[in-house]
Amino acid sequence: MFDFLIVGAGFSGAVLAERIASQLGKKVLVVDKRNHIGGNAYDYYNEAGILIHKYGPHWFHTNDKGVFNYLSQFTKWRYHFHVVKTYVDGRLLPIPINMDTLNSLYGLNLQSPEEVQAYFDKVKLPISNPKNSEEVVVSQVGEDLYNKFFKGYTLKQWEIHPKDLAASVTARIPTRTNRDERYFTDTYQCMPKDGYTVLFQNMLNHPNISILLNTDYKDIQTFIPFNKMIYTGPIDSFFDYKFGKLPYRSLKFEHETHNKEYFQSVQQVNYPNDYDFTRIVEWKHATGQQSSVTTITREYSILANDETDKYYPIPMEENHQLFNLYKKEADKLGNVIFCGRLADYKYYNMDQVIARALMIFEKQINTK
Amino acid sequence: MFDFLIVGAGFSGAVLAERIASQLGKKVLVVDKRNHIGGNAYDYYNEAGILIHKYGPHWFHTNDKGVFNYLSQFTKWRYHFHVVKTYVDGRLLPIPINMDTLNSLYGLNLQSPEEVQAYFDKVKLPISNPKNSEEVVVSQVGEDLYNKFFKGYTLKQWEIHPKDLAASVTARIPTRTNRDERYFTDTYQCMPKDGYTVLFQNMLNHPNISILLNTDYKDIQTFIPFNKMIYTGPIDSFFDYKFGKLPYRSLKFEHETHNKEYFQSVQQVNYPNDYDFTRIVEWKHATGQQSSVTTITREYSILANDETDKYYPIPMEENHQLFNLYKKEADKLGNVIFCGRLADYKYYNMDQVIARALMIFEKQINTK
Ligand SMILES: Cc1cc2nc3c(=O)[nH]c(=O)nc-3n(C[C@H](O)[C@H](O)[C@H](O)COP(=O)(O)OP(=O)(O)OC[C@H]3O[C@@H](n4cnc5c(N)ncnc54)[C@H](O)[C@@H]3O)c2cc1C
Ligand SMILES: Cc1cc2nc3c(=O)[nH]c(=O)nc-3n(C[C@H](O)[C@H](O)[C@H](O)COP(=O)(O)OP(=O)(O)OC[C@H]3O[C@@H](n4cnc5c(N)ncnc54)[C@H](O)[C@@H]3O)c2cc1C
Repeated sequence: MFDFLIVGAGFSGAVLAERIASQLGKKVLVVDKRNHIGGNAYDYYNEAGILIHKYGPHWFHTNDKGVFNYLSQFTKWRYHFHVVKTYVDGRLLPIPINMDTLNSLYGLNLQSPEEVQAYFDKVKLPISNPKNSEEVVVSQVGEDLYNKFFKGYTLKQWEIHPKDLAASVTARIPTRTNRDERYFTDTYQCMPKDGYTVLFQNMLNHPNISILLNTDYKDIQTFIPFNKMIYTGPIDSFFDYKFGKLPYRSLKFEHETHNKEYFQSVQQVNYPNDYDFTRIVEWKHATGQQSSVTTITREYSILANDETDKYYPIPMEENHQLFNLYKKEADKLGNVIFCGRLADYKYYNMDQVIARALMIFEKQINTK
Repeated sequence: MFDFLIVGAGFSGAVLAERIASQLGKKVLVVDKRNHIGGNAYDYYNEAGILIHKYGPHWFHTNDKGVFNYLSQFTKWRYHFHVVKTYVDGRLLPIPINMDTLNSLYGLNLQSPEEVQAYFDKVKLPISNPKNSEEVVVSQVGEDLYNKFFKGYTLKQWEIHPKDLAASVTARIPTRTNRDERYFTDTYQCMPKDGYTVLFQNMLNHPNISILLNTDYKDIQTFIPFNKMIYTGPIDSFFDYKFGKLPYRSLKFEHETHNKEYFQSVQQVNYPNDYDFTRIVEWKHATGQQSSVTTITREYSILANDETDKYYPIPMEENHQLFNLYKKEADKLGNVIFCGRLADYKYYNMDQVIARALMIFEKQINTK
């Protein structure tokens, strides 16, 4: 007899399982249809012995000290600032666009944040109320930077023209007026020292937690005795798609191992304009693994279908409305808590998902 | 609803799950109280990124082409002859004892198998009907080799004097009259190319197989609906130890990572006389992993208790009799198949366990 049946062994499910088991002493069954724990953050050693992420690169970063401290119970960290470059006009340039990006791309010699800001002010288009993603970007950095850095990437990533994407999707694009080359500015930027899968093993390694893998909860929910369900899968699937399917973008990965120590200078290089792939990730830069070989992964953005994984909710108004139909149904169920990226049909970073799960634990579960 | 509940995700359980799922199309739930699949053959990457075996070194070797072919469906191989050395009188010597062992140890210059055989014939004691392990060994290789290679190792491994160990335990000790330095002479000697855990993942990666980890079958058998049970755990535990506990030897492992490419010249060095540990294993020699660091593991033999893992059944007549009491009870149960090392209270190598599981599948399960 389980107190909780948790569907999904990603961060949402694992955090809630860990809290319920360790804080409330209750029995939990975590079920996942995949054959491993970790959800989309799962990593593993490939044939060349290189630690890679199965479902695309996961760079941990947060400003939330609570989330950082919580995870620190289950892993040591490799402190590492995430650095991404963009390949534009035959050159590797810092992204977010900063002083070096402009100087290198245009052969300028901007020397101070004021000069950089003045440059942005000179090139940006005066649009006071941007109506779509294109307008958001050109109103900040002008047409040339928009064309070189954003348009192609957006087209590859969403197969939607920035003109047709809501302004909210790119509400603010980050730019830097100094030489800061970090991809994120968060206080905590790091990778779990032994990888994400080990972190999940440590979280779930509790006598009150059973883990059922390779199993769809729909195949076992009728005979597994439990009190309450926590559901972190896709909300439309829970309701058997009765209002229709929520669309997602997915990814295709092309892994390649090279017989040399490093392939590129940073963990991630974006390709907004060239080739069909969106980016090339080189894992060792982020994990810190030492090896005489290196694995890189090229990423192609595709529309999700029934065979592919569901990665990115597509930020269009009609999808949001469809989600709301499901949400109303979900709210009627007293016995099921919906939680996580797929249940909320919302792109969350890991730290957001963890913060939400911790909050749901306190507000909806740990109530006495 | 499951057709089979299989207790234990080691080789016995995994082979039967795979056969039942893929050949009979039936639904299987594999449950293990550990938080991983693979049983004692489980391997993982440690903090230094070195692939090591959690429960002691597993060197695969077999003469059974059927077993080799069966496993080859789920793994590629690294072809590798297992080599072990013994540290005696301050020197690393080949074991099994061969021409080089004798020449090096005694400063001899034996040149042919005939001369080596003549040496053994000269030193061996004339005991026609050896009554215990000591007599078995001295009747083959004489007292000095017995003292240097076998006595100390046996005492460390079993805490039993070879005089008190049944003759059957050491029924024939392997010696070589040539320079063959392989530890085993089996036709197939290799390691699963990506490790044992990946091999198990591939075996169990079938839509008919659910995997429940971190769970004792006793906690779920009452409410999980299933037709038949396959039990690969300890037989005495199944019957709640009602006739008493079957004793086992266990191991204590001391892992150490060194900041150099290799620590010793071979995958395993035995220490029959010096130190308290029985052997030092260096993983990279067997797995073929390339790295600038290396992990070694020292192994100490201890008596198993309720906290430790059960590794080696202790080959004493009284234990065999106790096992037979349980066996009689097991035979009465029409609905449970007992299978594997712990259920049979018998030391099997991996290939033997796999061969037995395949046979049990054909004889007792695939019956139409
Ligand atoms: C390509 C990509 C890159 C990312 N990079 C980053 C990054 O760099 N930094 C960052 O902070 N975040 C990143 N994220 C976001 C991060 O992956 C998510 O925040 C996090 O994984 C969400 O956790 P979750 O538990 O809500 O969902 P998931 O990790 O998706 O877990 C849900 C689980 O539910 C299971 N499930 C679904 N349906 C069923 C069913 N019917 N029965 C049983 N199980 C079911 C699924 O198999 C899955 O394992 C990235 C996401 C993607 C897709
Ligand atoms: C130290 C050591 C070294 C070895 N080296 C070699 C070698 O070099 N070459 C070789 O061929 N063989 C080797 N072996 C033998 C090899 O380990 C076995 O042949 C093989 O692992 C046996 O498989 P099994 O499935 O029968 O048992 P196991 O692998 O022991 O699996 C049984 C499983 O049942 C689970 N279980 C038990 N009770 C319960 C319960 N109540 N509920 C749920 N689950 C339960 C256990 O957790 C375990 O995972 C070695 C063995 C040891 C101990």
